[in-house]
Amino acid sequence: MHIAEVPTPAAVVDLDVVEGNCQRMSTRLAALGVELRPHVKTHKCVELARLQGGHGITVSTLAEARAFFEAGFHDQLLAVPLAPHRIPEALSLGEDMKLSLLVDDARVVSRLDGAARARGQRVPVWLKVDCGYHRSGVDPESPAAVALVRQLNETASLEFQGLLTHAGHSYDCVERSEIARVAAQEVSVTTALAERMRALGFGVSGVSVGSTPTLSVVEDLTGVTEGRPGNYVFHDLHQASIGTCRLQDVALSVLSTVIGVYEDRQSLVLDAGALALSKDAGPTHLDAFRDYGRLSDLEGQPLAGLRLVGLSQEHGKIRVAPGAPAHGLQVGDQVRILPNHSCLVAAQHPVLFVARGQQVVDRWRPVRGWSLH
Amino acid sequence: MHIAEVPTPAAVVDLDVVEGNCQRMSTRLAALGVELRPHVKTHKCVELARLQGGHGITVSTLAEARAFFEAGFHDQLLAVPLAPHRIPEALSLGEDMKLSLLVDDARVVSRLDGAARARGQRVPVWLKVDCGYHRSGVDPESPAAVALVRQLNETASLEFQGLLTHAGHSYDCVERSEIARVAAQEVSVTTALAERMRALGFGVSGVSVGSTPTLSVVEDLTGVTEGRPGNYVFHDLHQASIGTCRLQDVALSVLSTVIGVYEDRQSLVLDAGALALSKDAGPTHLDAFRDYGRLSDLEGQPLAGLRLVGLSQEHGKIRVAPGAPAHGLQVGDQVRILPNHSCLVAAQHPVLFVARGQQVVDRWRPVRGWSLH
Repeated sequence: MHIAEVPTPAAVVDLDVVEGNCQRMSTRLAALGVELRPHVKTHKCVELARLQGGHGITVSTLAEARAFFEAGFHDQLLAVPLAPHRIPEALSLGEDMKLSLLVDDARVVSRLDGAARARGQRVPVWLKVDCGYHRSGVDPESPAAVALVRQLNETASLEFQGLLTHAGHSYDCVERSEIARVAAQEVSVTTALAERMRALGFGVSGVSVGSTPTLSVVEDLTGVTEGRPGNYVFHDLHQASIGTCRLQDVALSVLSTVIGVYEDRQSLVLDAGALALSKDAGPTHLDAFRDYGRLSDLEGQPLAGLRLVGLSQEHGKIRVAPGAPAHGLQVGDQVRILPNHSCLVAAQHPVLFVARGQQVVDRWRPVRGWSLH
Repeated sequence: MHIAEVPTPAAVVDLDVVEGNCQRMSTRLAALGVELRPHVKTHKCVELARLQGGHGITVSTLAEARAFFEAGFHDQLLAVPLAPHRIPEALSLGEDMKLSLLVDDARVVSRLDGAARARGQRVPVWLKVDCGYHRSGVDPESPAAVALVRQLNETASLEFQGLLTHAGHSYDCVERSEIARVAAQEVSVTTALAERMRALGFGVSGVSVGSTPTLSVVEDLTGVTEGRPGNYVFHDLHQASIGTCRLQDVALSVLSTVIGVYEDRQSLVLDAGALALSKDAGPTHLDAFRDYGRLSDLEGQPLAGLRLVGLSQEHGKIRVAPGAPAHGLQVGDQVRILPNHSCLVAAQHPVLFVARGQQVVDRWRPVRGWSLH
């Protein structure tokens, strides 16, 4: 099937570009001497995880963990701090595979240890460290960091894997040199804490870092053992705008059909709205960034002068710049939209259409939701 | 099951509030002398559509049309301008039920007529009119409006149903008196066009209007035949903020668990992120509106001083106001989040948990996607 025959709106994966992105990141981390543990939350498709390679995978939900386990992925890391009510489900999944969990709270460590002990189970656990993003993770300079490392070293049923961080603030950078500074911080904060803990006599074997921007830019990962990039398989306008990738490295796009042409008000309407594109506004810290995606024709030629300025549930609104042509677009014509944030877009689609050039060669179905119901 | 036992993140429907919202809108439209054709895109659940009543339903995708047809809804209106590639699918669905379609483009009318004629089928069609929202719809003052009404009256295989509009710009209002002005415009633009067309000798039987804000406020629907509100079943912070409803009328919330407490940086992290809440920023035209939802405890008591300031894929970031208490929240505690935009939130969840008070009494599964694959 040619991509022009895919019923829109539809998410399309450019397989050649994905393979290039995967190859580049694998080569890069190998050259830097660290293992790759890709985050699959970006795509949630087992077929794509197989292309990524690595010594294990990173997941964001237990629904992903279950689906990827069933597909043969038996070394996984759940990289969101574990909610206590998920402990039984996590331990149950961990009976049949290595499912590493993330903690940064002493009470959760105690509860997890107690639950594991009651089942006669040993659970691999990473400590989440805040390297400056200030979302999750213990402050590495705080007494709590030492106390947690001590607790994890002394807790019988937990197997302490090491320190883990995510420099999510790399997404707030404006260009590569700034990303490089965040990347250096991501490495130095975690490796320095690992060294301080080792000097105190604690075992710290692993140091896991990762965000697509930092791992695409960093030149020195001394002291780090693994990297966990996720978004790099698809990239998106956010990554291209801050300098992580080139525009031609963006592998996910949304196909859409023109369903309205309104010359009198210089606008067009597409059949891709908030449900097909998410309402992620992209890197709004960049002055030049304002729209909900970048428009091109099916061959990727940009539609200059057309801006995707608004999204409602099933409508995308295009504004035609004053004096600009509407490129002859008529109702029924198709366009391609490069998304602001590919992780959120892929999660919106029951099916990802996988293409080689303009030919659909496969269909992948992302894992969805959080629980079995 | 008590709602505290639902694995988070989870969407919860307060059935008492939904029933009140449905009753109020039904009573209101009956008193105003128009039929109700509720838009089911807000929830996409057949169980809830049955509570809404009305003389038919409005859908936003052919996937909804198919699922609701199978559940016994045999009078439907697809209220998004039809994309030409969907014509065969729409006609096929229309063989077994009354599926009315929306058009505002002369070429699509011709193609639809040709396709219907080739199948020996007659298709009910509405003309979409722009009443000031400037998304879809023909300009009612333009020669194109007259030409389209003429074409629809003269096209053998299409059964012209009348004029349809949606005052989506009511969402940009700041309070009820402004909504009332938009509502008056929604009615006057369509009824005036209908009268002008009748004076020219064209048949215009139906006049369909609708948005939740306008239909919650309007006091006179003379000349209108049906209303198509959708969001009113759940409402949300957007509706409450512009005065469409009271806060206690919001029937959809997201349950979430605290997965991080970071006193040193005055923040908490929840297990509800962009996939559980969407990234809809709400009514950002209101100065006071800034966050990704309103936080309360499970009983609905507001958590004053806590703001949901950021969402990443599976994390929600709460900022604790300087000097404010964190309400004793610990990792594992649950909170309730009233969403900015309930339509987008409901579409994110494989299951909606339906509660009477604090007890889960049912589980509804929203229709998802756009196509059969």
